[in-house]
Amino acid sequence: MAVTGTGSHLAAGDLALTVVSGGVCAARGFAVAGVRCGIKRKRRDIALLVATGGDAVCAGVFTQNIVRAPCVDRNVAVLAEKPFARAVVVNAGNANAGNGARGEADNAEMAQMAATALSVPANAVLTASTGVIGHPLPMERLAQGIAEAAGTLACTAEAADHAAEAILTTDTFEKQFAVAVHLPESGIVVNIGGMAKGSGMIAPNMATMLAFLTTDAAITPAALHAALDAAVNVSFNCLTVDGDTSTNDSCFLLASGAAGNPVLADLTSADGAAFTQALKQVCVHLAREVARDGEGATKLVTVRVTGAPDTLAARKVAKTVAESPLVKTALFGNDPNWGRILAAAGRAGVPFDPKRATAHLAGTQIFAEGTPTDFDGPALSRAMAAKEIEIAVDLGAGDGAAMVYTCDFSYDYVRINAEYHT
Amino acid sequence: MAVTGTGSHLAAGDLALTVVSGGVCAARGFAVAGVRCGIKRKRRDIALLVATGGDAVCAGVFTQNIVRAPCVDRNVAVLAEKPFARAVVVNAGNANAGNGARGEADNAEMAQMAATALSVPANAVLTASTGVIGHPLPMERLAQGIAEAAGTLACTAEAADHAAEAILTTDTFEKQFAVAVHLPESGIVVNIGGMAKGSGMIAPNMATMLAFLTTDAAITPAALHAALDAAVNVSFNCLTVDGDTSTNDSCFLLASGAAGNPVLADLTSADGAAFTQALKQVCVHLAREVARDGEGATKLVTVRVTGAPDTLAARKVAKTVAESPLVKTALFGNDPNWGRILAAAGRAGVPFDPKRATAHLAGTQIFAEGTPTDFDGPALSRAMAAKEIEIAVDLGAGDGAAMVYTCDFSYDYVRINAEYHT
Repeated sequence: MAVTGTGSHLAAGDLALTVVSGGVCAARGFAVAGVRCGIKRKRRDIALLVATGGDAVCAGVFTQNIVRAPCVDRNVAVLAEKPFARAVVVNAGNANAGNGARGEADNAEMAQMAATALSVPANAVLTASTGVIGHPLPMERLAQGIAEAAGTLACTAEAADHAAEAILTTDTFEKQFAVAVHLPESGIVVNIGGMAKGSGMIAPNMATMLAFLTTDAAITPAALHAALDAAVNVSFNCLTVDGDTSTNDSCFLLASGAAGNPVLADLTSADGAAFTQALKQVCVHLAREVARDGEGATKLVTVRVTGAPDTLAARKVAKTVAESPLVKTALFGNDPNWGRILAAAGRAGVPFDPKRATAHLAGTQIFAEGTPTDFDGPALSRAMAAKEIEIAVDLGAGDGAAMVYTCDFSYDYVRINAEYHT
Repeated sequence: MAVTGTGSHLAAGDLALTVVSGGVCAARGFAVAGVRCGIKRKRRDIALLVATGGDAVCAGVFTQNIVRAPCVDRNVAVLAEKPFARAVVVNAGNANAGNGARGEADNAEMAQMAATALSVPANAVLTASTGVIGHPLPMERLAQGIAEAAGTLACTAEAADHAAEAILTTDTFEKQFAVAVHLPESGIVVNIGGMAKGSGMIAPNMATMLAFLTTDAAITPAALHAALDAAVNVSFNCLTVDGDTSTNDSCFLLASGAAGNPVLADLTSADGAAFTQALKQVCVHLAREVARDGEGATKLVTVRVTGAPDTLAARKVAKTVAESPLVKTALFGNDPNWGRILAAAGRAGVPFDPKRATAHLAGTQIFAEGTPTDFDGPALSRAMAAKEIEIAVDLGAGDGAAMVYTCDFSYDYVRINAEYHT
């Protein structure tokens, strides 16, 4: 079957997948708005995402950090009560974290503001905040912004662009993606769209990785949650800029059911598998965009580990390589430093025999049989100057494989994170 | 009892400890040399440490990295056969790692060269190499240097200085320390001395943390190994510059028995405990010096975690804070960024309630009751400009405590590690 995509990572076997425009509005049954209320200096800072046909099935995945913002705690509680949501209200520029009891009250009030504007119950509204920690939310501005957003909801690519801008902090560009996928059994085409933000895991004075996903597929809450878990596992959970997770990391997936397909309940069915696969690709695309826009990043780096004892072991090695400051500074310097890559792999806690391991960098084999290959250093260094490169390590110790997405580590990372003052 | 020391970390209860000069030569029964054979551009690069009265009891602790240099594999094998050594020969400037079968042969030959020069069996000689990875050892220079070192062995502070210089790579200063400790039961004074190197865990094109310790205490092999394990556990294993362990990390402790004390066999005895305590202090001092000299470091940072469920949990939290690039860049920028410290603690995988946690930075409380305190930011930023600062986090979740030693993360770290080419 035909595959249309913007990159090779979209070539997904025989999945009938088409990249479409519209971001979160590509899926039918949603409207969005992005406005500016003045929390950020220049850009839009309030986003509102609404399911126009009534409550959508909703799944969420949140930070594992113990130090969490009140919005995370509230979303977890709301979704535990019932896996549905009518709207998500988001502000950027202030994470409303570390604000004690006042932060909890402000977050509840933020949900209430959106609920009032939309005439829905407060527990139908989820919240997300991103930005500085430890400063109270400016509630008056927020009230004004939420009211304005509720009045400008639209189901257009332009509205999706506005919302994608409104969730950014130190990001340098908007991150949106959407696909249409043909469900092979029912013959129906469903859409999955998304927007994300995040450039450091915790940007200047902190922040967050946020992702908002929509689909018009009809799907049960349990299947939706399982599909989101599977997709996050190979995308946002395989993304690392600096190893620091945040107080506010959140990923939401809302399903309107507007496509009218037979309700997906079994992800092992052909339709369920196609949906999950398409969702993974949306999430991987957005995760790669976040890595590409990492603080101070000059290139997107994919670390591919194969030949590991199992998948978890492969991911462990890939993450250790991707988070090594020595590997990341070498990538910034276009230094084909195979030794740092192997040494990072060797300390990941996964058993393998270095004599059976091989490593490739930007397509060139750099290590085999326990020793570096006779590669052309200057030529490889030039190849490393590309905007996207891959580090591939085969451990020769099994069939486990994983990919992790990251970026290099530059002077600008230090500048962005050292020169900002709390 | 009186304690004489250079820093507060030496104030060890009622331990009768005196700081003495002489480094590894402070302990009787050892001679050293440090010469230059031309592996490094400017500095001495061959060190030789010899037990002058016959084989010394010897314990070693080595890198846990799977990718290891042949010297590490050989030392482990030699010490497993018998826990004694007559000499340790060290070269800096070339790690002899990643050189395949040739590296193994060269390492064995290096031991043989020293054995021949000293007229002892090859398996009485341990080896250590540090420097670039993947380049063959220059064996002719090595032969010349080892012969010269064997001819200039001396038991003087000057010889110890030369040896301490000869083990350095990107380090900016020599690291030596020695103490005399009064064993309370036997009434005998024993000496413990040491030298160390290491400035990145893996310096420019790699490298290594190396430590060579000597004592004139009489002690059984089992007790020596247990004491070294205990000391390394609270010092070199609590040291992190960038989280990267190396192919060559090694720590040796040789005991000559020249002090003539009743042989220490039980570390829980008063004498055994005094010895262990003194050894810990030598190791902590050397570990702190390595952190202070971290690549690009502008300050020595101690992360002290208390109130953890147990010691391991405390160490986990302290390491996560110490290795966080966001915390380290904030320390470089003198930014009292309590949020990054708490967020790093929160992702360490240790359960605690942020509302019961407190944090201090450079002596000022910055976080309590789930929210930042009303601290004077500009004043605290000025205090953070000191050469040594402490981050103290109390989790309010138990009695576990740990200290980890690290440094900040500067433009120079990126420069040193990005601009070097393999």
